[in-house]
Amino acid sequence: MTADLEATIAAVRPADETAMRAARDLQARLTKPAGSLGTLEELSVRLAGLAGVCPPPLPAPATVAVFAGDHGVHAQGVTPWPQEVTAQMVANFVAGGAVVNTFARQAGADVMVVDVGVAIPLHGGATLLDANVRRGTRDLSVEPALTRDEAQAAVEVGLGVAQALVESGAKCLLTGDMGIANTTPAAALIAAFTGRDPAAVTGRGTGIDDETLAHKTEVVARALARHRLDPADPLGVLAAVGGLEHAALTGFILGAAANRVPVIIDGVIAASAALAAAAFAPDSVAAMVAGHRSAEPGATVALAHLGLEPLLDLGMRLGEGSGAALALPVVTAAVRVLHEVATFDSAGVSEK
Amino acid sequence: MTADLEATIAAVRPADETAMRAARDLQARLTKPAGSLGTLEELSVRLAGLAGVCPPPLPAPATVAVFAGDHGVHAQGVTPWPQEVTAQMVANFVAGGAVVNTFARQAGADVMVVDVGVAIPLHGGATLLDANVRRGTRDLSVEPALTRDEAQAAVEVGLGVAQALVESGAKCLLTGDMGIANTTPAAALIAAFTGRDPAAVTGRGTGIDDETLAHKTEVVARALARHRLDPADPLGVLAAVGGLEHAALTGFILGAAANRVPVIIDGVIAASAALAAAAFAPDSVAAMVAGHRSAEPGATVALAHLGLEPLLDLGMRLGEGSGAALALPVVTAAVRVLHEVATFDSAGVSEK
Repeated sequence: MTADLEATIAAVRPADETAMRAARDLQARLTKPAGSLGTLEELSVRLAGLAGVCPPPLPAPATVAVFAGDHGVHAQGVTPWPQEVTAQMVANFVAGGAVVNTFARQAGADVMVVDVGVAIPLHGGATLLDANVRRGTRDLSVEPALTRDEAQAAVEVGLGVAQALVESGAKCLLTGDMGIANTTPAAALIAAFTGRDPAAVTGRGTGIDDETLAHKTEVVARALARHRLDPADPLGVLAAVGGLEHAALTGFILGAAANRVPVIIDGVIAASAALAAAAFAPDSVAAMVAGHRSAEPGATVALAHLGLEPLLDLGMRLGEGSGAALALPVVTAAVRVLHEVATFDSAGVSEK
Repeated sequence: MTADLEATIAAVRPADETAMRAARDLQARLTKPAGSLGTLEELSVRLAGLAGVCPPPLPAPATVAVFAGDHGVHAQGVTPWPQEVTAQMVANFVAGGAVVNTFARQAGADVMVVDVGVAIPLHGGATLLDANVRRGTRDLSVEPALTRDEAQAAVEVGLGVAQALVESGAKCLLTGDMGIANTTPAAALIAAFTGRDPAAVTGRGTGIDDETLAHKTEVVARALARHRLDPADPLGVLAAVGGLEHAALTGFILGAAANRVPVIIDGVIAASAALAAAAFAPDSVAAMVAGHRSAEPGATVALAHLGLEPLLDLGMRLGEGSGAALALPVVTAAVRVLHEVATFDSAGVSEK
C-alpha cells in the first residue's frame, strides 16, 4: 500500500465514548418522551461519537460523489442494458437531469461526478472529474478484473475526492455510483467479504428476468471459484472481482472516516465498498450511515454484516446515490434535534 | 350535519384516472429502470390522481397544523404525565422549541398551533389559533366524551383551518397533535372503526409500563362496551370515544381531500382521525399520505385498514406531527422526479 492509503487507515479511530454519553444525556433532557424518536436518537449518538463532540456538526454542506466505471463482465450478458449507457448517464448527471440530481437538489446537496473507469472517453465540463484509471475492468469471470496497482489507484481516487471535499468544507459525504453491470462485481465482493452464497447476494439489478438472474448468479459463482479470495486482503479482493467505482468508493468511505465526517451509504454498490472499507479499517463503520435498504438482496446482507440498519426502506434499486440523497434530510433532522430542541428545564415542561 | 361539513363531504371526489395514467407513462420514460424508485413511483402516481394533473404540484408551501386538546380519561391513570404538559407543550410549539418545530424547519414547512380543546386557558401569540370548543373532553370510560354538537364543532375547526391554509396557498397539509392521554381515545376510535380488539390497538403511548398498559387496555375495552358505536356514524363515534384534536384532525383531513391537496398523516392520533374521515367520505383516502409507521400498534392497524403504506419506519412514537414533517422531503422528492428528471429521449440515453 502507498503512504496515502496507509496513513488514511491509521487515521481511522474508534468513536468517542464521552461524546456519545453526552448525546445520550442530552436526548434524555429534551422535551419529548425518552426514546420517542426511535432510530434517530441512536443515530444522533453515533454521529456525536464520530465527531467527538456533542452536538455533532450539522451534515451540511454535503456532496454526493458519483463514481462511474465500466465492467468487462458486461460481455457475459448479465444485463440487458448496453455498456454505452454508463457514459450517457454520466452526461445526464453532468446536465443535472438524473434522479440523483433531483434528490440532491431537494436535500440541498451538491453532485460531483468522477470518471474513475468509464470505457468511453468523456468530456463533461466543470462538474466531471477525470480520474480514469482504466477504461473499464477486465472480465472478472475469466481473469482478475484489475491489477493490484489499478485497484489501489482507484481506491486513492476515492480517498483524494473525500479529502478534497472535506478540505473545501463538506460536513457530510454521500456515495454515488454509475456503471452498467456493476451489481455483478458488487455481488461477488459481498459474497467474498461475508462468506455468503452467490444466490443469497445476487439480485435483479435494473430488473432482469429469472433466466438472466440465474445466469448472473452462475457468473458470480464462477468468479468466486476462479479467484482465491482472502477477505483479510481487501485490495486483493477488489482487484480480483471488484470494479473501479467499487474501489474508489472504498477509498471515499475510508477518507470520510479518517476525517471523522459521516458518509451516507447508498445501495448495493456502496454497501459492497463499505465491506471493503471495514476490512481495511474496522473502525470506519463508525462513519457509515446506511441511507436506505436497496431491493438488491446483497445490500441487506452487507449492511447486516456491518451492523447497520438502513434509515429508509422504499423498495428503491436505482443507485446513483439516489437513496443516500433521499436520506440526507433524515440525517440532518436527527442532528438538528440535539442543536435546537428545548429541554424540560428550559421550556418549563413538567416531567412524568 | 351542518352545511359546511356536508358540502365538504360532497366535494371529496375519486382520484383522476387520466392523470394517474399520464404519471405512469411519464415514469416509464424517465432515465431510470422501470420501477427502480419503488414506493415513490406509486406515490407520484397517487398525487397526480389527487391533483388531477401530471405532474402534480410540488407540495410547497406546506403547513403542519398541531391540534391540541385535553382528555377527561386522564383521570383514569392511563399515563404518568400530568395534564398540564399539554398546555406547556403548546407554549413550547409556539416558542419553536419542540421536535416538530425542528423537523418542520428542516423540511421548510410552517407550524400552526390550534387550541381546540386544551383544559387551561392559553395565551400564545401569533402562531396560536384560539378555537377552543371545550376545555377538555369528559371521561370516555364513564360517559360520552363530547356531545354530537361539540364533536361537530371540533370537526369544523379542522375544516376551517384546512380551508384557510389552502386559500392562503398551501399545497400540502401535515397533521399534528398534542394532548396528554390522547392515545387512549385514538385506540378506542381505531377499535370502533376497524372492529379489532382493544388489546390489538392499545399501545404504550409515551412509554408506559406493562401494568399501566394492561390498565389502559381495560379502560379502552370498558369504553367500547359502554357506548353503542356505529362505524357508519363517525360523528357519533367521535363524540362517544374521541377527543377534540381527533375530531379537528378528521375535519382537517376532509378539508384537504375536498381541496384535492395531499395531507400527510403523522402517527396514531392522525391515523384514528383518518379512519373517521374515511367513514365520512371514503374517497378522502386518495388525499392521504402515511408519513411514517408509529411504534403504536393501533397506527399500523388503522393504516392497513385504509390501505396505506407508511413512507418511514423509524420506531418513532412522538406525535406532534414529527413523523409527517420528517416525511415531507420524501414526498417532495417523489413529485420532483416527475417535474425534473430527463427522459430517455431528451437525454439521449439508450434503452435496454
